[in-house]
Amino acid sequence: MRINRIDHLALAVDSIDAALPFFTEVLGLEVTHTDVEEGQGVVVAFLPVGDSEIELIEPVDDGSGVARFLRGRGPGMHHICLEVDDMDAALDRLRDKGVRLIDEEPYIGTGGRRIVFIHPKAAHGVLVELYEKLPQDSEPGGGVRAYLSERLPSREELLANLEDLRQRVVTRGRVVAAGTRGFIDGLRRGR
Amino acid sequence: MRINRIDHLALAVDSIDAALPFFTEVLGLEVTHTDVEEGQGVVVAFLPVGDSEIELIEPVDDGSGVARFLRGRGPGMHHICLEVDDMDAALDRLRDKGVRLIDEEPYIGTGGRRIVFIHPKAAHGVLVELYEKLPQDSEPGGGVRAYLSERLPSREELLANLEDLRQRVVTRGRVVAAGTRGFIDGLRRGR
Repeated sequence: MRINRIDHLALAVDSIDAALPFFTEVLGLEVTHTDVEEGQGVVVAFLPVGDSEIELIEPVDDGSGVARFLRGRGPGMHHICLEVDDMDAALDRLRDKGVRLIDEEPYIGTGGRRIVFIHPKAAHGVLVELYEKLPQDSEPGGGVRAYLSERLPSREELLANLEDLRQRVVTRGRVVAAGTRGFIDGLRRGR
Repeated sequence: MRINRIDHLALAVDSIDAALPFFTEVLGLEVTHTDVEEGQGVVVAFLPVGDSEIELIEPVDDGSGVARFLRGRGPGMHHICLEVDDMDAALDRLRDKGVRLIDEEPYIGTGGRRIVFIHPKAAHGVLVELYEKLPQDSEPGGGVRAYLSERLPSREELLANLEDLRQRVVTRGRVVAAGTRGFIDGLRRGR
């Protein structure tokens, strides 16, 4: 297995709206897309930096793992995501070395790509996400973020979209921990 | 000003020797160089990942800021370094926006490049280093890390070198806080 690059560095913030001026007006970065992780009770915003991205994560649900992270440690760096060229080889290596994972089986993300989280206790205090590169990611115009190049939304559109995403979580009620997969729930169980 | 890329993500560890097996044998990364920051009482090791690097930081001096970070929070992500194309423009922007810095004047690093640290209180809990790209970095074979391509040292050579670097700090005695510049001392004053 080979790690191609840092896919993203995730930062937990109390409010994406409140954090954006630092990242856009001071650092000069741009938000290219926003999303919601309903099972984890968070909304996210991505800001490309070179060949990587900064991901801002804001909890919508007070019971979510990111909300607890913020209450316990305050805002700051939450996890790093590394892109691997071969997830089968990565999983073999992790199991062979007895590395503790958040979930034993990969989480299935956008485009069917597999994602695993290595537990911070196995990675010197760092929550490490491994993210699968798919063959189409190498094609011109391919990849999960290809749609981004079509049109960059305005700040107002992004903030309105974020508000829609927050409402989507809220109207479906509180995140049910027993039903969630992925790092937030796993982290809770691990502590 | 423009941010070109994530130059490195710095992880504070209790021992580089103890942390290396995870990063090399599990993740498959390689250490390409080691160094010492005598004024900060730390030794460091760099592991390239795509167009960025992971930097492992180990305190040699119990009084250093990184040693205190480890005692207070345990090992984990310590700071992120972003490469800027124009440090003059960056400094103008930071001052114009009233962004709190660790040191008012840039710290001068390898090759005369200027480095500033943005205080975590101004950056949503993230210690952000801005690192200056110099014109020669774009030339073929140029840049501060050009020497790396010459020969990759063996694991044994790297660990022996790290031990030499630790001794260099120890034999010069404890780090004198009043004489240090940079983020560790600044962070201490800021708390």
